Amino acid sequence: MERNTTALQDPGYRSIDRKGVGVETTRRDGAGLTRELVRRALAVRHEDLPGTVRQVARDCLVDWLGCTHAGEQEPACRIVRASVLEEGGAAQATLIGSPLKVGVSQAALVNGTASHALDYDDVNLVLPGHVSVAVIPALLALAEYRQASLSEFVAAFVAGYETACRIGALVEPAHYANGFHATATLGSLGAAVACAHLLKLSESEACHAVGVAATQAAGLKAMFGSMAKPLHAGMAAQTGVRSALWAQKGFTSRPDALECAQGFVLAHGQDMHAHHALAEPAGGHHLLNNIFKFHAACFSTHATIEALRELRREHAPSPDQVQRIQVTAGTPCAICNIPSPTTGLEAKFSLRAASAFALLDMDTSRLDTWDRVTEDAVQATLERVRVELVPGMGLSESVVALHLADGRSFERAASVGSPMADKAEQSRRVDRKFLALVSPRIGYDRSLRILDRLTAMVDDASSSASLTDLFLDCRA
Amino acid sequence: MERNTTALQDPGYRSIDRKGVGVETTRRDGAGLTRELVRRALAVRHEDLPGTVRQVARDCLVDWLGCTHAGEQEPACRIVRASVLEEGGAAQATLIGSPLKVGVSQAALVNGTASHALDYDDVNLVLPGHVSVAVIPALLALAEYRQASLSEFVAAFVAGYETACRIGALVEPAHYANGFHATATLGSLGAAVACAHLLKLSESEACHAVGVAATQAAGLKAMFGSMAKPLHAGMAAQTGVRSALWAQKGFTSRPDALECAQGFVLAHGQDMHAHHALAEPAGGHHLLNNIFKFHAACFSTHATIEALRELRREHAPSPDQVQRIQVTAGTPCAICNIPSPTTGLEAKFSLRAASAFALLDMDTSRLDTWDRVTEDAVQATLERVRVELVPGMGLSESVVALHLADGRSFERAASVGSPMADKAEQSRRVDRKFLALVSPRIGYDRSLRILDRLTAMVDDASSSASLTDLFLDCRA
Repeated sequence: MERNTTALQDPGYRSIDRKGVGVETTRRDGAGLTRELVRRALAVRHEDLPGTVRQVARDCLVDWLGCTHAGEQEPACRIVRASVLEEGGAAQATLIGSPLKVGVSQAALVNGTASHALDYDDVNLVLPGHVSVAVIPALLALAEYRQASLSEFVAAFVAGYETACRIGALVEPAHYANGFHATATLGSLGAAVACAHLLKLSESEACHAVGVAATQAAGLKAMFGSMAKPLHAGMAAQTGVRSALWAQKGFTSRPDALECAQGFVLAHGQDMHAHHALAEPAGGHHLLNNIFKFHAACFSTHATIEALRELRREHAPSPDQVQRIQVTAGTPCAICNIPSPTTGLEAKFSLRAASAFALLDMDTSRLDTWDRVTEDAVQATLERVRVELVPGMGLSESVVALHLADGRSFERAASVGSPMADKAEQSRRVDRKFLALVSPRIGYDRSLRILDRLTAMVDDASSSASLTDLFLDCRA
Repeated sequence: MERNTTALQDPGYRSIDRKGVGVETTRRDGAGLTRELVRRALAVRHEDLPGTVRQVARDCLVDWLGCTHAGEQEPACRIVRASVLEEGGAAQATLIGSPLKVGVSQAALVNGTASHALDYDDVNLVLPGHVSVAVIPALLALAEYRQASLSEFVAAFVAGYETACRIGALVEPAHYANGFHATATLGSLGAAVACAHLLKLSESEACHAVGVAATQAAGLKAMFGSMAKPLHAGMAAQTGVRSALWAQKGFTSRPDALECAQGFVLAHGQDMHAHHALAEPAGGHHLLNNIFKFHAACFSTHATIEALRELRREHAPSPDQVQRIQVTAGTPCAICNIPSPTTGLEAKFSLRAASAFALLDMDTSRLDTWDRVTEDAVQATLERVRVELVPGMGLSESVVALHLADGRSFERAASVGSPMADKAEQSRRVDRKFLALVSPRIGYDRSLRILDRLTAMVDDASSSASLTDLFLDCRA
């Protein structure tokens, strides 16, 4: 019922007066943290990246491109794009899905908003949030503008991605719990670092870029369900590009913006887990723990869908045999518990709708499935779903029980909090998702060609292929 | 040593789970607050404004124009402008001091940064912060773009100014104390409301504009002393313009973004004083409590300067008679307590330097006075200043004691927390400040002509004069 105050009893906090104006004390265990994170990020080199990391980076780009291409017609993106086009700008970077070019930070804003508009993009639970939709639009626009190669892009992406996650480990859970949408806030920082890497900023310039991003970083979780949610990704991308470009021109902020008294971390929360931020993640890269979404709905519905699919595979109940579906999920799933959804958007945030689709064996990876929530069969099934949210379970877990008319009942637990272990299979699924998202607008053959070209470009470790090629065939 | 938790014991907070994700409870006393503030703001009509309010609005515009004109050559502004010009944009709104026009939100960003670059712009202690530098650049750019008249501008300015202050009353002191620079955060909201007024948005659209601004509102007080501080004003202005323009095109956010669970107010602080926000300020308008700065330094040095001027006036000590100057000020003045300043910028944030200038009868209203901090006479005087910061005194108060070599000592307290009662005299001082700031670059006659034209335009209640005229003579 109130802010977690445990962290405040940590002796490391004693030197900080949160109410002090201009008190210059730095928290002990955070001392030098901004610089250390920047140093690590700038040290990322393409040739040192393990093959699996490069592969997941490629998958992120494929997934991002698919989501953005399919999302750019959504209302939030249309409005922001119309506003940007009205304001005008130099032809520096391409708007995905169109032949139009606008200013580099404008492209980051529009493409970022597009990429998160369907809420179908990848996630990382360390934040928790969406890293790719903040970092990629910033980096892609900048790479096009500065004619960077794909290998430079990949290294910069990894640098930014890892930094966003490390800062996630630093500030969570307080930051998210206090109401900040990590995709927007931490995404801005990751995007700034990625752009700093691409621009080959000095350590000092990059620290200032982080500071400029930190002071612009904003985004409220209360906006979930409105157009402002996808805007957050666009804001983060634009903030990232701008902060790096300004720092390159000599703009100064604070080189210790994360950890300083009343800096980014403490103003937005209480947690400052420097040891978490500096720890090596499983597999050596946070990127390897990136989770791709294969259901076109809020991530918190995914475990429930998976549990039901398993039950269906094992017991093959006919839908009309099912008297009741009991879903037990964690209280964080309150964000996806709209009880009586009537639109596709509402259905995406409805555990009952997701359960109905899964039981009816409908393809939850398709965007249009979610619009079918009004169909009688779906509504009739949805009526039989009971949802109970309990403390102690996370947003990636669910337990589903099927109660049949003949008295039998089956139960199954599922967790979707880990990435797929089989990365080759993960790539195949990402590719299929890309084709399904993109081909309705530009045809299967062209979609496949983009995919193949992208794969060839990234697979070639020595590739200096220009990113501009990526956009050639993407125009709807 | 930790966040003020008193407010959390307020029964009004019991219904809110700060950790709850998606909990939709609204705090009782804040219910409907966003809409109520928007309703009041949209109801502001130029013909209903008392003459004094219009006069202070005019003074704000004069003061803003002077500060912006003098500030646009500062490094922070030069970098942001260079970046904007590189990105390009349609010729929608003028960059102050130049013949250049850029996109409307770009002009807001650049002019906003310019206007706060000298830290010489007006303040309102309710925030506490600078309202004009957030609201005016947004509104002026939009008014030029949409060819609004000066009377439309004045009404929109008052609407935005009052709203920023009301939200200040709502969220302070927790918001500022937690590290947020109110000029940036609350400034964004004020600018959005002002632009919504100018665009004649509906109540519902204006609520969405506030929500879009609330989710973009950012700015850390930790950036004081860096280029990011003036950037905050530019960010706020750009956020305001964009939020209103997007809302006009149908962008949705949350119509209760201020008061909702995990909304703007609670995510950024604990205080939600709805009754303060809705209370009528002294004189009926927060604008009447606007404080103009007549010393070109951090506001927190002003009381000390005034106390010393009084002592000098009364006792006329010769500077070399003075053995010691004892300054006692509030702990909030830690932001202006650089002990051994060596540059003009540092001197502006130094109580010791300010004391030395005042004792030496140097003109602290001149920008170049502060660069003279390295002169021997100043340094010698500065050595004799002792500063003690004590709790319980605010940033607008100071007590100064002069200890003379002959054993005599004099003491004087000063407070600069109230606006000048004589508004006519205030206008005269603002005009003199404008002439001093602008004439070095464009000459006295042209400066005077701008001032006269502006006065005539605002004094005429029925004026529909276009704002574009304002820019004609302003080009350096």
